[in-house]
Amino acid sequence: MQYHVNGELVDREEATVSVDDRGFRYGDAAFETCRVYGGTVFAWDRHFDRLETTCETLGMPEAIPDDIDTRIDETLTANDLEDAYLRVSISRGVQPGKLTPDEDVDPTVVVYVKPLPRGGTEGERVWDDPAVVQSVTRRRPPESVLPADAKTHNYLNGILARLELRRASREGYQPDEALMRDTDGNLAEGATSNVFFVDDGILRTPAEDSLLPGITRETVIELAEEEGFTVDSGRYTVDDLRQADEAFLTNSTWEIRPIATADGIDIGDGPMTKLLQRLYDRRIEARCY
Amino acid sequence: MQYHVNGELVDREEATVSVDDRGFRYGDAAFETCRVYGGTVFAWDRHFDRLETTCETLGMPEAIPDDIDTRIDETLTANDLEDAYLRVSISRGVQPGKLTPDEDVDPTVVVYVKPLPRGGTEGERVWDDPAVVQSVTRRRPPESVLPADAKTHNYLNGILARLELRRASREGYQPDEALMRDTDGNLAEGATSNVFFVDDGILRTPAEDSLLPGITRETVIELAEEEGFTVDSGRYTVDDLRQADEAFLTNSTWEIRPIATADGIDIGDGPMTKLLQRLYDRRIEARCY
Repeated sequence: MQYHVNGELVDREEATVSVDDRGFRYGDAAFETCRVYGGTVFAWDRHFDRLETTCETLGMPEAIPDDIDTRIDETLTANDLEDAYLRVSISRGVQPGKLTPDEDVDPTVVVYVKPLPRGGTEGERVWDDPAVVQSVTRRRPPESVLPADAKTHNYLNGILARLELRRASREGYQPDEALMRDTDGNLAEGATSNVFFVDDGILRTPAEDSLLPGITRETVIELAEEEGFTVDSGRYTVDDLRQADEAFLTNSTWEIRPIATADGIDIGDGPMTKLLQRLYDRRIEARCY
Repeated sequence: MQYHVNGELVDREEATVSVDDRGFRYGDAAFETCRVYGGTVFAWDRHFDRLETTCETLGMPEAIPDDIDTRIDETLTANDLEDAYLRVSISRGVQPGKLTPDEDVDPTVVVYVKPLPRGGTEGERVWDDPAVVQSVTRRRPPESVLPADAKTHNYLNGILARLELRRASREGYQPDEALMRDTDGNLAEGATSNVFFVDDGILRTPAEDSLLPGITRETVIELAEEEGFTVDSGRYTVDDLRQADEAFLTNSTWEIRPIATADGIDIGDGPMTKLLQRLYDRRIEARCY
C-alpha cells in the first residue's frame, strides 16, 4: 500500500511525519474519512467543505493544497483501488517549539487509503453485525471547549469513551460503540458515529449543537425527507433511544448500521432502517457508478 | 541535535513516527515537559508520577519503558547538554485502523531535548518580559469531558485559546498567554501555565478541579507554605486576578513568570513574587547542583 505524504507517494511503511510535527505533538490537525466507490469519492464536495471549515477554525484557512483532488486520484491509482477507505489529514506541520501557532503554515498533508469492499445491501458489509451500544459516563465537549463542527486529530474524548466499553464487556456481551451524552445529559452521538432512531414512524436524531455534523447523517436526513418522512432533530435522552422501535448508527465507513441493543435492551432494525439502507445504496449507485 | 526515538538516538531531522501512529492520528499520547539543570532533571520523580497517571488514564499503564531514565541520560549526553528543555512523549503506537485501542500496546517513546540556559534570578531568563495575559472565551474542559490530571497530546483547547490572542493583538499590545476559565466561569489556568496572585499577603491559586496540576505549581505552593505563608486554592474570577497586588504564572519552562498586565490592567510583581523566585532558584540549586 502507498500513501501520499506531502506531495509524494511513499510505501506505507515509510510514510512518516517528524516527531516535531504539530499533528503529533498536539493533535493540531484536521481530517476527513471518506469512502470511495468505483473510483469516485462519495460526497467529496461535502467532505471538502467540512475540511475547509475545520482548517478555518484552526486558524489555517489556506492549508488545503490546491491539488488535493489530484493527490487523492494518484493515491487510488497507485494502489489500484476502486473501492476504498480514504482519509485525508492536514496538520499545521513543523513549527518552532511554541504552543501558539505561527501564521505561516507549511502543512503536512497525508492521504491514506486501504481497500474496502463496496458493501451495500447486496454486498459484503464493513461491519460484521449490528451495533451493540453502551452509554458511557464520558461526555461530549461543549461548544465553548471545542467547536463541534471541527473534525480534528484531538480524539481522546472518543477514545476514553471507547475505553469504558472494556469495563462493560463480558462473555457474550461485547459493546462496540460508546453512546455519549453532552454535558447537559442529552443524547449526543457515538464515539465515531451519529445516532438515529424511529419512534411512531418519525425519524429522530440529536440536534447539531454538541455533535460533529456527519456527512452520512446529512445524506440520511435528505433521503428520508425526499421520501416524505418527518425527521425531527432535537434533544433526546438515552431512555428515548432505548424505547425506540428501530435505531441505527451512521458514519461514512459503516454507512447505515442497525443498533441491535442499547445498554443491553433490544432495539434492532425495521422497515425504516431497511428502506434508508436501500435509498442510501441507490444514492451511491447514482453518484459513483 | 539528536532525539531518542523508540530506543535509538537519531538526528532530529530524521526523528519521525509513522503517519499511522495513534499519537499522530488521534493525539493518543501522554507527555511531560521538564527542565534539566546541571545534568539533573528537576523534579523528575513528580513528572514521572504524573506521566504514569496519564498513561493509566489512557488505559496503557505499562507503556513507560523501564529504561526511560537511561534513555533521557543518553539523549542529554549525546547532545552534550547540562542545561536543557526535555520532553518525553509516549504514544499508544501503531495499531490497526480502529478508534478503540487494542489492549496490546507497543508504545512510541520519544525523548526531545534542546538547550535552555540555566536562568534563575541572576541568569538569563527563558522569557524576555513579564507575561501579558488576556482572558479568552475558550473554556477548559470539565472533568467529565477530559480528565484534568492527564497531560496528553490533545492540546487543541489551549491552541484555540492562544489563537484568540491574535484578535486581541495590536501595535504595542501583544498578549502572550491566554487566561482560561472553566465552564462555570471560574478562573482556571493559562494555556500552558498555572496562575497565582497575591491579595492582602495571601497567595491564591485556582483549585485543582479543572486544571492540570502543574509540577511547578506544586513546588511553589510547598515553598510558600514552608516559608509560613497562607496559600489559598479556591474558586476565583478573572476580576479577582485583575485586582491583585501581584500575580505570576508558573510552568516548568518559565519557572515563575510575573504577570505584567491582565486584560490590559497593570498588576506586576512584588515582594512575594520576588521571594518565591529566589526560593525556587535555591530549590533548584539544592536539588540539581
